[in-house]
Formats: sequence, structure tokens, C-alpha cells
Amino acid sequence: MPTVNAYAAPSATEDLVPTTIERRAVGPRDVLIEIKYAGICHSDIHTVRGDWGPQQYPLAPGHEIAGIVTEVGAEVTRHKVGDRVGVGCMVNSCKECANCLAGEEQYCLKGMVGTYGAVDRDGTITQGGYSTHIVVTEDFVVTIPEGIDLDVAAPLLCAGITTYSPLRHRGAGPGKKVAVVGLGGLGHMAVKLAHAMGAEVTVLSQSLKKQEDGLRLGADHYYATSDAGTFEALAGSFDLIINTVSASIDISSYLQLLSLDGTLVNVGAPAEPLPVNAFALIGGRRAFAGSMIGGIRETQEMLNFCAEHGIGAEIEVIPADKINEAYERVLASDVRYRFVIDTATL
Amino acid sequence: MPTVNAYAAPSATEDLVPTTIERRAVGPRDVLIEIKYAGICHSDIHTVRGDWGPQQYPLAPGHEIAGIVTEVGAEVTRHKVGDRVGVGCMVNSCKECANCLAGEEQYCLKGMVGTYGAVDRDGTITQGGYSTHIVVTEDFVVTIPEGIDLDVAAPLLCAGITTYSPLRHRGAGPGKKVAVVGLGGLGHMAVKLAHAMGAEVTVLSQSLKKQEDGLRLGADHYYATSDAGTFEALAGSFDLIINTVSASIDISSYLQLLSLDGTLVNVGAPAEPLPVNAFALIGGRRAFAGSMIGGIRETQEMLNFCAEHGIGAEIEVIPADKINEAYERVLASDVRYRFVIDTATL
Repeated sequence: MPTVNAYAAPSATEDLVPTTIERRAVGPRDVLIEIKYAGICHSDIHTVRGDWGPQQYPLAPGHEIAGIVTEVGAEVTRHKVGDRVGVGCMVNSCKECANCLAGEEQYCLKGMVGTYGAVDRDGTITQGGYSTHIVVTEDFVVTIPEGIDLDVAAPLLCAGITTYSPLRHRGAGPGKKVAVVGLGGLGHMAVKLAHAMGAEVTVLSQSLKKQEDGLRLGADHYYATSDAGTFEALAGSFDLIINTVSASIDISSYLQLLSLDGTLVNVGAPAEPLPVNAFALIGGRRAFAGSMIGGIRETQEMLNFCAEHGIGAEIEVIPADKINEAYERVLASDVRYRFVIDTATL
Repeated sequence: MPTVNAYAAPSATEDLVPTTIERRAVGPRDVLIEIKYAGICHSDIHTVRGDWGPQQYPLAPGHEIAGIVTEVGAEVTRHKVGDRVGVGCMVNSCKECANCLAGEEQYCLKGMVGTYGAVDRDGTITQGGYSTHIVVTEDFVVTIPEGIDLDVAAPLLCAGITTYSPLRHRGAGPGKKVAVVGLGGLGHMAVKLAHAMGAEVTVLSQSLKKQEDGLRLGADHYYATSDAGTFEALAGSFDLIINTVSASIDISSYLQLLSLDGTLVNVGAPAEPLPVNAFALIGGRRAFAGSMIGGIRETQEMLNFCAEHGIGAEIEVIPADKINEAYERVLASDVRYRFVIDTATL
């Protein structure tokens, strides 16, 4: 099973091109997945373009993977041929450290292995989901429940879990007021999930351009942050703010929107440090926190939750030859709300 | 009971001088306290010098007050003549907002009334503890239990509660690793309290100059932050860090010392925003939080805890005519660990 079709970046400065990549032979605890759909995450663009550090090329990105199991190793117990499965942002971890043992593999103390562009435990560089097949150790493969189509499921593996985890961890639910900053790939999932959890949801977006969408997705309120009056009107309002915007925003202004003991969670990280006014934290016992995807157990819990509540991503399915165009549209925020590659076109 | 002796600043740029100030007549719910001791807090200096905004002068600072009740209003039920009592950083609040009703008067949504330099609900400007007497509504007067001398109790009303509250709120106790940044007036209380709560305590100080003191006060470990090796050695170590340093420190480096789900709590606030690297938060689901003193109920709980564990502040008692000299020594960090004014010398 060595050579499979893929779309990969030949370098940091070139467009992605059709190519082939090598997959390892299916080991005793491995699962071979025929990928059906792969979401396009903003991180894919940052990574292949070298924004987050140098990469080895060619590099096939993609960590929002949905497909069907076509082969399993002799010792595999979690999955069988024909299963609908997903792979997210990581494909391995040490499985021995305190965080792995706690089911928080994303915080593996030895470093989790990213789905692409990372050094795997066998020394090879991982290649992602813009490809027809992938081989992953069964522990990092989750089940996509019946009731969610594979195309709308793919983005749940990153955008879904990235927002689900902090919502759960910080107690979003009935009686809680949750704000979501930014209505993009992550933000639209945060709105759907927080609404399904029973929270009162407010979108804080630069403009009111997507207001109708936001309300349809489950938001109770929608405010434009370009209007300074928004920050006055909402001062001290929220128990939880999920900031999905990776660009630098004035965090201290948003902190002022939290009520007593409120938390603002960043799920993205701008390259530059964010200036934080400590008075904004102290006056209200507020916290500025971070969160990174979620563990495998929690990812499965999220998928089950989505199936139960009929939640998938809002997507635009594209053929492989539209990937480069899609990248430009992602950078221009011209997508509602996630591009998903139909890998049959690879 | 109008005119009492005090030490007050005539302006932002002059030394404090002996003077008299007016106290209101004892109302039906008021307590008249003969002040015995008043601690000198760094905030006193910032406030009288106008660092935190313009003030009305003359201004008598002091919000670490310990004394004896000498008169009570007709409707007072909480205190009686002869009681040993304390007053901290606030003397009033609205008592009606959600935060006040939750016993968190320090976060009163209409603004708590500071013990000095604040506009009281009757429109007068409050005057603090560098005086022989004070009149305070009984709800903001706490009981100093037998077993704590009034001189070592005074600093508990600010330095004590300021560190006790985040330690409790963030779960300091057996099995938890707590670091205290800075071994000054606040830091030395944080060490004593965290140790008494059963946590494993580490002091992070600029140098090892006070190491012997730190260990005597209850620290298990002591590191110099001027040594870059400290940050490598302690990476990912702590469940909780209490930062008592008001000057700007490199918060992102300290955040890296937290383990999964760890929190760094600032109890002071530098004037300038602190640059925070969001990656330091995201990688480890960490939080950067704030905390401001504590509510009245919690202040009483703290005093009871201190009495039970034999905890008081480490103090140097001074007569009133040494206040200005003491200010210079506080600014030079030349105090172990709190100056307390003997108000009999006023």
C-alpha cells in the first residue's frame, strides 16, 4: 500500500500540485482509511507557507479527515473494515505521560505527532488528508456515527473539537452566556455547539454582514465589534468568550465583556504577543486562557454529541483542482464556512 | 466624634504629616473603632503619590486596620464594645448587585467604596487607617479572633486576603504545587498561607537573598529567576502561580512553568499592559487570571484560618514619625515583610 494520490505543496512559495505520496504498510495496530473528504483549515495554509516555521516538502496538509476503513492490522480492536471514521489534528503521542494517560493526548508532554508536517515516532514526516488514503494507529482514529454525512463531518475533526473542548471544559450550558468572537470556520461551529449545549449565544463579529447566518446557526444575539458602542453595551455580560480569531485583537477590551469569574479562551494564536491589561483581569477575577483541539476520547464524545443534535459543518465541497483558489478565498474570509475537498477528484 | 489624629499627605508630592481628620458621627449601623495598628501597603504609596490617578488632599491612607470597638450604633448586631476587629480595603458597597449578594463585595457592580481616597455613599471622601479612630458600617468590619495579636493581624486585612482568596479559589491544598512570585509583603503571606493549606510551595524570587527566610516561612523550594536555568528546570511544574510582583515581568515565561490546566494569578497590576504569548496559554490549556482582595465573608474565613494555624504577618512596628522613611524603604524593597504603624504614636 505504498503510493497514493495526493495534493501537496512543493515549497513554501508554490501552489499545491497533484502528486503521489508514500504511506506505510498497515502494521498490526494500524487502520488503513480510504479518505472521502478532507476539510481545509486555515492552519493548512499557515503551515505549508512556512508561517509557523520551516517545513519539509513536498507537504500534503489536511487534518480534517473523514473516510472508510478498508484494512485493519491483526491486533486492531477498535475499528473494522467498512467503518466510517475520522482523523483529526494528531496521529500519535507517547501514550505514557500524565497528560496522555489522562486522555489529553493533544498536550502530550513529549509532543503529540501532528497529522502532517511532523516527525512521526518512526522518523518519517507525516502527510495529511489531501490524499486518497492514510494509515493511522487505531488509537487516533475515531468513529463517525451514523447520522452525520462524511462531508459535513470532516471539519468536526478540527473546527468542531477545537470549539467543543473549551465550551465543555468551561461549562457552557443552560443559564450560561457565551460569546463567540469571529464567525468563520471555527466560529460557526462554536455557535452551533454552544447553542446545542443550551447556552445563550452571542456572536461578536467585525460587521453585521453575516448576522442572518449567525442567527440561523443558533446565535441569540449578534453584534458588530466595529461599533464601539458594542463594548459599552455588553460590558460585564458573558460567562465565557471563545475567541476564534487568530489575528491580533484588543484582548483587554474583550476581557471587559466578561462577568465575575468569566473566562476568555483563545483557540488560535497570533504570532505576536497580545497586550493584556492586568486590571481587566483583576477587576472581576477574570481569566484569559487557551485551548488546543481536544483529546481522542473527547473528540469521540464531540462526534456523538453532534450526531445526537444533528450538527455538521456548513461546507462548500470542492474538487482538488480548486484547492489553491480555495486558499485565497479562505485568506479573504470568503467561505461559508468550510471548504471540504472531495478526495475522489485527487 | 468628629476630629481625630491622623497622618496624611498634603499633596501628591509632599511627605505625609501629622494632622487631624473628621470622622462621621456613629450611625445606627456603624461601629467606632479605636485603631491600634495600621499596616503600610505599597498601594498606599501609589495612591497618595497620584500614580493611580488624581486624589483629593489631604489624604490619610491605610487599609490594613486592626483595633478595638469603642462604640456601636443602636442597630449593630455583629460587633460590640471591646471586640477586636479589623477593616481592610473597602468600607462599603451597594449590597444589592449580584456580586454583593454573592458575598463578593470587592467586585460590586456599582463599585465598592475603598477605605481611603474614595467617594463614600454619603459623598464624603474616605480617609484610611493612619489615624486613631475610624467609623465603619458593621458589614465591613471583621472579627480578629483571639490568638492573633493585633499588630501581626493588621496586614492580613490586605496582604493576607489578597493572597488567601486566589489560593482558595484556585484549589491550593495537598497534592498541589504552588509557586509564589516575589517574596515581599504579599508574597510572604502567600507562602505562609499556601503552606498551611498543605500545598507544596516554591518561591520564585529575583535572587536567593531571602532564601533562608522563604524556607523558614514555609516554602519547600526556592529559585532565583535571575538564573535562566530556573525556567528550564521548572517548565510545566506548577498547578498554580501567584504573582505578587506589580512591576512588569515576562508573564509568558512564567506561564510556561504551569502544568496542564494550570493558572497564573496576578494580584497586582502594572500600569502597562503585559504582553502574553497565546501559544503559552494554548499549549497546556493554561490561564492567566486576576484576583482582587476578597469578600467580607472570605476575609473572616481567612482570619479564622490564620488563627487556627497561628499565622500572622512578619512585621516591623514603627512610630508615626517614621512613615515617610518607611515609604522609601518599601520602594527599595527594604522591609521584612510589612511595616505596621503603632497608632498610639499619632
